[in-house]
Amino acid sequence: MATPRQDTTATPWQDTSLPAHRRAADLLARMTTEEKTAQLVGVWLGSDTGTAADTAADTGEGAPAPVAVAPGQHRYTAHSAALDALLPHGLGHLTRPYGTVPVEPTEGAARLAELQRRIQAGNRFGLPALAHEECLTGFTAWQATVFPSPLAWGATFDPALITEMAESIGASMRAAGVHQGLAPVLDVVRDPRWGRTEEAIGEDPYLVATIGTAYVRGLEAAGIVATLKHFAGYSASRGARNHAPAPLGPRELADVILPPFEMALRDGGARSVMPAYNDIDGLPAHAHTHLLTQLLRDTWQFTGTVVSDYFGVPFLDSAHKVADGEHDAARLALAAGVDVELPAARCFTTSGSLPEDLLDRAVLRVLTQKCELGLLDPDWEPVPGGGDSPVDLNPPHMRDLARKVAEESVVLLANDTGILPLADGDGRRIAVVGPLAHEQAAMLGCYTFPRHVGVNHPELPDGIEVATFAEALRAEFPGTAFTDDPAGADICLAVVGDRSGLFGRGSSGEGCDAEDLRLPYGQGELLDRTLDSGTPTVIVVLSGRPYALGRWADRAAACVQAFFPGQEGGAAVAGVLSGRVGPSGRLPVAVPRRPGGQPAPYLVPPLGLRGEPSTVDPTPLHPFGHGLSYTTFDWSEPHCDAPELATDGETTIRLTVRNTGDRPGTDVVQLYLHDPVGTVARPEARLVGYVRVPLEPGASAQVHAVLPADLAAYTGADGRRVVEPGALELRVCASSSVVRHTVPLTLTGPVREVGHGRRMRCETRVK
Amino acid sequence: MATPRQDTTATPWQDTSLPAHRRAADLLARMTTEEKTAQLVGVWLGSDTGTAADTAADTGEGAPAPVAVAPGQHRYTAHSAALDALLPHGLGHLTRPYGTVPVEPTEGAARLAELQRRIQAGNRFGLPALAHEECLTGFTAWQATVFPSPLAWGATFDPALITEMAESIGASMRAAGVHQGLAPVLDVVRDPRWGRTEEAIGEDPYLVATIGTAYVRGLEAAGIVATLKHFAGYSASRGARNHAPAPLGPRELADVILPPFEMALRDGGARSVMPAYNDIDGLPAHAHTHLLTQLLRDTWQFTGTVVSDYFGVPFLDSAHKVADGEHDAARLALAAGVDVELPAARCFTTSGSLPEDLLDRAVLRVLTQKCELGLLDPDWEPVPGGGDSPVDLNPPHMRDLARKVAEESVVLLANDTGILPLADGDGRRIAVVGPLAHEQAAMLGCYTFPRHVGVNHPELPDGIEVATFAEALRAEFPGTAFTDDPAGADICLAVVGDRSGLFGRGSSGEGCDAEDLRLPYGQGELLDRTLDSGTPTVIVVLSGRPYALGRWADRAAACVQAFFPGQEGGAAVAGVLSGRVGPSGRLPVAVPRRPGGQPAPYLVPPLGLRGEPSTVDPTPLHPFGHGLSYTTFDWSEPHCDAPELATDGETTIRLTVRNTGDRPGTDVVQLYLHDPVGTVARPEARLVGYVRVPLEPGASAQVHAVLPADLAAYTGADGRRVVEPGALELRVCASSSVVRHTVPLTLTGPVREVGHGRRMRCETRVK
Repeated sequence: MATPRQDTTATPWQDTSLPAHRRAADLLARMTTEEKTAQLVGVWLGSDTGTAADTAADTGEGAPAPVAVAPGQHRYTAHSAALDALLPHGLGHLTRPYGTVPVEPTEGAARLAELQRRIQAGNRFGLPALAHEECLTGFTAWQATVFPSPLAWGATFDPALITEMAESIGASMRAAGVHQGLAPVLDVVRDPRWGRTEEAIGEDPYLVATIGTAYVRGLEAAGIVATLKHFAGYSASRGARNHAPAPLGPRELADVILPPFEMALRDGGARSVMPAYNDIDGLPAHAHTHLLTQLLRDTWQFTGTVVSDYFGVPFLDSAHKVADGEHDAARLALAAGVDVELPAARCFTTSGSLPEDLLDRAVLRVLTQKCELGLLDPDWEPVPGGGDSPVDLNPPHMRDLARKVAEESVVLLANDTGILPLADGDGRRIAVVGPLAHEQAAMLGCYTFPRHVGVNHPELPDGIEVATFAEALRAEFPGTAFTDDPAGADICLAVVGDRSGLFGRGSSGEGCDAEDLRLPYGQGELLDRTLDSGTPTVIVVLSGRPYALGRWADRAAACVQAFFPGQEGGAAVAGVLSGRVGPSGRLPVAVPRRPGGQPAPYLVPPLGLRGEPSTVDPTPLHPFGHGLSYTTFDWSEPHCDAPELATDGETTIRLTVRNTGDRPGTDVVQLYLHDPVGTVARPEARLVGYVRVPLEPGASAQVHAVLPADLAAYTGADGRRVVEPGALELRVCASSSVVRHTVPLTLTGPVREVGHGRRMRCETRVK
Repeated sequence: MATPRQDTTATPWQDTSLPAHRRAADLLARMTTEEKTAQLVGVWLGSDTGTAADTAADTGEGAPAPVAVAPGQHRYTAHSAALDALLPHGLGHLTRPYGTVPVEPTEGAARLAELQRRIQAGNRFGLPALAHEECLTGFTAWQATVFPSPLAWGATFDPALITEMAESIGASMRAAGVHQGLAPVLDVVRDPRWGRTEEAIGEDPYLVATIGTAYVRGLEAAGIVATLKHFAGYSASRGARNHAPAPLGPRELADVILPPFEMALRDGGARSVMPAYNDIDGLPAHAHTHLLTQLLRDTWQFTGTVVSDYFGVPFLDSAHKVADGEHDAARLALAAGVDVELPAARCFTTSGSLPEDLLDRAVLRVLTQKCELGLLDPDWEPVPGGGDSPVDLNPPHMRDLARKVAEESVVLLANDTGILPLADGDGRRIAVVGPLAHEQAAMLGCYTFPRHVGVNHPELPDGIEVATFAEALRAEFPGTAFTDDPAGADICLAVVGDRSGLFGRGSSGEGCDAEDLRLPYGQGELLDRTLDSGTPTVIVVLSGRPYALGRWADRAAACVQAFFPGQEGGAAVAGVLSGRVGPSGRLPVAVPRRPGGQPAPYLVPPLGLRGEPSTVDPTPLHPFGHGLSYTTFDWSEPHCDAPELATDGETTIRLTVRNTGDRPGTDVVQLYLHDPVGTVARPEARLVGYVRVPLEPGASAQVHAVLPADLAAYTGADGRRVVEPGALELRVCASSSVVRHTVPLTLTGPVREVGHGRRMRCETRVK
């Protein structure tokens, strides 16, 4: 190992007893402009797109060009002209050391450690790079556990489980030498035609905020920097087209799009934010000073880093045309509040000087974070154990977690005939139709390693075991005979949905937007034919977005929905079909009745919900929050200890839930707030709390919900976020459209401004 | 006739030598609160919906309940409890005296005169009511000329003709005793799934502004108060659903939605404005103080009246939930700047007092306008000639104008095979298929009397002659044999499109929104079958919105598009098919290739246009501005006298257009402005000028376009509307995507703020 040319001055920045900010400032003061700039860029080894001028610029987060590899023979490009040029000055980020080309994890860790030592040796301070990786559905690395997609997390309504999952993901990344994960996606679904719907958590800001924050807590608890993306409005693009402008007004932005980011920063402690590709009403997010500095830094007091989305900085020039060339794009991004250019140096290193105060501001943030992560410490190790310990990215406890999340995420949409659960070994023949029943692509989201990278390496083994639906079904029903012909069967399982993929390689995923919510690949016609056969048919949807199912709703015997449930997803869905798993998922996005008429989110004012003045009725087939069970529950009348509360007060609601059936099961109590009159048109009701209640047959539990008046806050006509005195109605619901009980509340006292400094809070618990 | 109880004080308000404002103020000072309130409401005789609490409230501008009538026996309700209650205090508006139930025009005028005399006699000032009527496609009265729909006006690209048309409409209304017309619709089309697309002029703000202003000039020149609607954002509703919220940011509002209103007020002199039903980012237009007062009154210096859309005031309570009851709705609307409640007294007359200063502000505006219209003058006559002269609402010169507008509006979309024009008497058999070929509903928009009111009176004759397409075709081709079977014909004309109607009675019109842009009524399958026959087929689209035609584009022999071309529309379309009329229309809205993926307006930043990052490509089949001719034209290289101009300067572009074919024809030169770099993402290019150039074979003409730098203004990141120095590109185009020539321009000097006080201006002329 080469010895770095150490800066031998007395060095406060190396003094681990000093605060990180102080050490970073000292180090910054010693740096040349070149050294500063180098801290603000990444290098993407193994990718052709990192520094090329045009290649991926037109396709967004372009996947690297295919590289022919085989296990143990893969190409791991440890050298590049870009890296060589930067090394003497240092390096800010290493881009995707595991998710670019397949690498065996233990070997990858060793190579990463070696590379980090080279980087340290290259600069006079001995500074390593911060290594970042994708982790949307688990660590995006070969042989790593693939968890369900975020839409499935949303369906669990189980923040604690998501925290546990994220902590396990974070621990495995940390063990492999990675410091930052580019997740979670906190975009609130506004139009499910958008291809990235599968990457989002749901269509309600409170659900997205709480589940997203739960994920952040887990990742950060493992020491990994969580990156909130995409800040902001990406999901509201016009026509749901990837990268298209988001026509958002300031109130929709404040009350729908931003709350998950605020909660994940304030309550979750996320340490990085990634701007969105889109513009909001003309202002590109990567040049949006109001969002990136005024709101994020000044109001929310965020002290972490803002890292660009891949190629987001050059897009200011090439796509948004708000910059006059790439140097201007760098200046604009830096000035707005972007600290780091990813995936690699491009605009930030163009010739021409950038304002030193802007450079210093960004470098100070980057160095402070590196210091907090230990990267400035003398005893820092590139990989725990020096990169020599075996790295297992798919241990049994992670597989168990993947299975548990999958099980809780399966939504039983309909079971009118009571056909489910299905018995095994009763002599009935089951037909399985639909090509997706035999494809892993129906289980794995587009940001999983097999679908994101593995597809470029068909010669490579998957690295993990992923049962298809048909395989899982045979394992679940060992005593049942299967066929592919509905005509000769007693029951038919029709499997429809999505094939995940990037940029046109699938029907769902980044760049795979839909013109409408018709089932793709002619699967609607498949359902028509199957139902025409007369065999009682259970529709199983494995997808990355909701699809219009109204056409078959009256004819199907039952319907089950899962959202890319991951490597253990087959068993989870099969378990729900057999009854081994009690279905407990709830829809994080509504299932529409008809394929057109989008967008039609549930979270709109009354005028947007009503079908009367329009021939297009946006009422969905299954609303947000819907999901059935195999058992029955009784909910007691709720008791409210203080129906009158001050605009800065809180109140508690209690009710008892009882499992009145003969099977164990889990109900989800959902609390929605309806505000009869306000200064602006607002959603008819919105989620403000929820709790899962798992109960054995005959058992009961008390739900205890503490509701601060803060939750009634909204952004009024004058742009201020306020809680107003007056009547409210808390709705205790089984879904956004099934109201079991209402609790009238009255807020008293003055109108109270809820600054962005006060966090939203809602606690529910089972007693 | 009863003698009014005259106020016998010396009366400045009766002194015709004083300015209107002074007279109105004097009259106001004499009024009781009840008399003031009465001036702010209407009465809708013959409609059950005027004062009922619930009936039409849920369906918007509900059509009155059907009333059984026959010519000469129709029910003309001259009494109502609402009218009787108001009479002692006066009455602001008479709602739809001709468009509620059918009335023979001469008799209607006599009845209106009688009613006005009763109203005058009822109040101590002898004040009549202001009579308003719809006039979107002509005076909405029985036996009145039905002109083409506004989308067809847009297709003419001929403001002078639209002014002529509007002046003739206005004159006929004035002759019938009407004072105000509820047109034009200046909503810029943002999503053609919206049912009211047919009522709008197009998808480019400059086209809408210039054609709309032309209409206003004509109507106002005839002495009729033009009403600009719907202010603002109605066309940008989410999912294109009628009444749904409009998710608009301030820049899109300023640069896309508002320019037509500004031009129609400042250049057109419109004297009334009607707010929209929708909310913009949560703020309902009827309670939108910024729009109705700050922008309209303070910035634009508008002095006319703001009249509510029908039931728009109670909607603040029942639909938007921003008002706590109907009295609160009245208070909110008045405070925001609504002056008159239409169609009838409801919220404004609820018990409880309204702030006197708000009442006074509104009444002063209403009385000033009544004074300007002569309604306060001693010699005022309710109907010119006292209501005894015969009233002809469909004279030959109006029918000629209807035909001319229709002829100029027909767009030849495709004629690759050269099959058009069709000869007559050459022995070829022509098949005509499609049910709409035999329906007037395919010619007449939903606001025409026959479709709006006549449908409720099936026993009533149409009152005007409207040839169906098939009838017009037989007249145009007297020497040709027609069949309805494509198989046995030499040529097939497949007629597809819309049936106009209100609230579900048709496929286009108010409340008839579409889920996607698929041809309705299974007409796509009709085209499939027709083209499968192998007979060369010309597709003729008669519709209220553009439909996706990509599926047949490669197989059809030709395609012709007309947008509800009115009572003379059949002859106009047939004339284009025969070649008697040279096609000269240009698309005011793009024709999409595929039915889904909406909205996809042409007027979006580059990132919104590109298909690369998305599987959904928004590129239309035929772009905005497209239209073919039967002859050919040559355009000379344009000459610019001053390619460098100051940010407050102007420049002139000249080019020569020559008809190089052997038929007369009209070309449309279109000028688009492209601005390479700005502070916000802006449309790739937008229309800033256009001119029709009618030429005999071999003839040529010079186009002379004077372009002020003002036209480069846009609303920047800081919200100011500015002209910036720097490079521009003027594109001389045959459509928004066919660029014939580019003219580089450079703006010099300081950034100049273009206050709303400076009007946009663009002149083009033929020399």
